[in-house]
Amino acid sequence: MSHIELGVDEKLFPGITGPLLFRPLTAGPLTDLAETLLRGENTLSRGERELIAAYVSSRNECAFCTDSHSAFAAAQLDQGMPLVLQVRADLDQAPITPKLAALLRIAEAVAESGRKVTAELVETARAAGAGDEEIHDTVLIAAAFCMFNRYVDGLGTLPAGRAEDYEAVAEVVVANGYLPLAGRAPSA
Amino acid sequence: MSHIELGVDEKLFPGITGPLLFRPLTAGPLTDLAETLLRGENTLSRGERELIAAYVSSRNECAFCTDSHSAFAAAQLDQGMPLVLQVRADLDQAPITPKLAALLRIAEAVAESGRKVTAELVETARAAGAGDEEIHDTVLIAAAFCMFNRYVDGLGTLPAGRAEDYEAVAEVVVANGYLPLAGRAPSA
Repeated sequence: MSHIELGVDEKLFPGITGPLLFRPLTAGPLTDLAETLLRGENTLSRGERELIAAYVSSRNECAFCTDSHSAFAAAQLDQGMPLVLQVRADLDQAPITPKLAALLRIAEAVAESGRKVTAELVETARAAGAGDEEIHDTVLIAAAFCMFNRYVDGLGTLPAGRAEDYEAVAEVVVANGYLPLAGRAPSA
Repeated sequence: MSHIELGVDEKLFPGITGPLLFRPLTAGPLTDLAETLLRGENTLSRGERELIAAYVSSRNECAFCTDSHSAFAAAQLDQGMPLVLQVRADLDQAPITPKLAALLRIAEAVAESGRKVTAELVETARAAGAGDEEIHDTVLIAAAFCMFNRYVDGLGTLPAGRAEDYEAVAEVVVANGYLPLAGRAPSA
């Protein structure tokens, strides 16, 4: 049971989905932001951006966001869930590009505090090929998940009951995006 | 100098204003969210919501967000800046309603981690008269400022040069809201 009466069956609407239905006024801007950050036009792939979201959520120990965005990342990365789990468990050893690793280190710093992002972390990312927009977007995706994680956990919502539930939602999110979570038509 | 080349004179565009101009794609959803949370129709006054934003930003030690939202709160609360500074310095002694104090305690917990929001904190707010929507919005405002604070500091932006700069911006934000920060027309 969440801390407030969400007016939905929380078993059917775990995590952020209950609060989005509870408060349509804020669901619109929140899903717009998720759609723009994770699925809008970008030189970082959707899979890479979902991996940043999953990684930050795991650092913040938000079970719902970690498991859901891990599933969304796995569905959009060639190497699937084994890679996602490897990144979460040991970033240094994971078989990803130096650029993506450096961006994930920036995201990890953001999760602790914006002030933990050092010129050295940024320089490492830049030397590995990251552009200003990619560094900007990494910081903002990481910051946004510090919000989503706190929203989900601060209201005491429940995670989904089974791992397969996230895979089922992943199919829907990969196909239709985040806007339907606020009752709107899928994006293009 | 921020960590990336924002393409603006950072002395004229301190804090979040530079990144918003740098990336119009994300400025839209971010300012929509701020406008909805801090100025949309709500049983919490605009001054109270800005106070929550300022309080969370001070806990996250984000100088730009603390000083700007303190100015925005002061401009919209009868007791002005003295009250804002008192709340930031010693919430227990500040002359505010038990309901607002309880909501600020929830916001403070969110700043640390969503998992720090306990049933007791929520029950205290409810007993002081807070409704479910107000508890929801407090959690989300606090969570959103954990994002904005990390966005501003994670990119290494500069705060404004002088305290008066924030008062000048406060007049504009109180009159026209947040949408003009993304180059859009003021809200009603």
